Amino acid sequence: MSAGALAEARSNPSTRRQDILDAAETCFVRNGFHRTTMQDLARQAGMTAGNIYHYFKSKEAVVLGLAEHERARGAALVADLARAGDRRMILTGIIAQHFAEIPREVAILRLDLWSEATRNPAIAAMHERFEEEGRAFFIDLLAGLATSGECDPASLYETMDALMKGIIVNRALTPDYDPAPAVAQLHAVIDAGLAGRLSKSSKPDGGASR
Amino acid sequence: MSAGALAEARSNPSTRRQDILDAAETCFVRNGFHRTTMQDLARQAGMTAGNIYHYFKSKEAVVLGLAEHERARGAALVADLARAGDRRMILTGIIAQHFAEIPREVAILRLDLWSEATRNPAIAAMHERFEEEGRAFFIDLLAGLATSGECDPASLYETMDALMKGIIVNRALTPDYDPAPAVAQLHAVIDAGLAGRLSKSSKPDGGASR
Repeated sequence: MSAGALAEARSNPSTRRQDILDAAETCFVRNGFHRTTMQDLARQAGMTAGNIYHYFKSKEAVVLGLAEHERARGAALVADLARAGDRRMILTGIIAQHFAEIPREVAILRLDLWSEATRNPAIAAMHERFEEEGRAFFIDLLAGLATSGECDPASLYETMDALMKGIIVNRALTPDYDPAPAVAQLHAVIDAGLAGRLSKSSKPDGGASR
Repeated sequence: MSAGALAEARSNPSTRRQDILDAAETCFVRNGFHRTTMQDLARQAGMTAGNIYHYFKSKEAVVLGLAEHERARGAALVADLARAGDRRMILTGIIAQHFAEIPREVAILRLDLWSEATRNPAIAAMHERFEEEGRAFFIDLLAGLATSGECDPASLYETMDALMKGIIVNRALTPDYDPAPAVAQLHAVIDAGLAGRLSKSSKPDGGASR
């Protein structure tokens, strides 16, 4: 038994699982899902090619594991914020940590995951489940923050959601991207929506009438 | 010479180029860039595997050709709109055709292209060039439409751009996506921005003070 294999056999299964997820993050960001093999993941995690299958039965399972891990991190963040502050602080905190300060590598992975979800039913189903959870959470949060009866939390969430996704796309695409202006605009849009200043009475062609 | 090869030899080079781009659109949407080979493209375009290289020297060249083609289509649309209408009609027309009515397949290709641009320098450079052109065009258009001195066209474009990208992501991800609510919100955001109602005085934490 080699020293590496011995160390591997000794270590904790959940630590090894996490090592593989960390290795996957590195490999996927460098080469994308498709160019990465299970062998690449094993090499990066410092384990034998055969052993990696004890932890994840396929590359798809690694992808699902990574997404699940990111979601758990998000839930922990929300729980922390909920303990510490009010609704607006929760919202501001989520935007800061999930969007304003998102590292480029995480944004690239997110973009790959979306791209993969358009073709892989298991990844699509997981994505849809997370989207539904996020939607319900945010609509409830926005409803509690509305300062006008004109505010439509569901429409406002639709806008917020698209804006946040667009910020992630730009973060992934632009190496020196500064998210601050877009995030400031996101807050301005949220403020306008909560105060009912993005009401449906703004028609698509409303500009002409002013 | 087979009948197919004969027909291929007779046909017009620019028609053949277009056939390959059409075939690429079909193959890329079905399987993504990475799983598609030049051989797949040749088969889909009904030509010999060797001959496709007379038109495109690599899969990357096909991708760049597709993107250039989409851009030419966009420029033609803008020229049509500019002949027919005023600035607001141009803006509304671009949003309708490029975002509200974008077919799911086109949105999926766009997502793939972004994902590819994070790793392929030639695709990244092309993407950056198109982004710069779009930015200059839209900022000029928005500046001409502003109805308040409080409107900041560059910030408003930043918002519009992220929102439009997010709409494309959602269109790609959700088979039964209805873009109408997000597009209505996009117009509401543009109206609010043009009228100076998304001004910088809306602080991120402005909600607390109301």
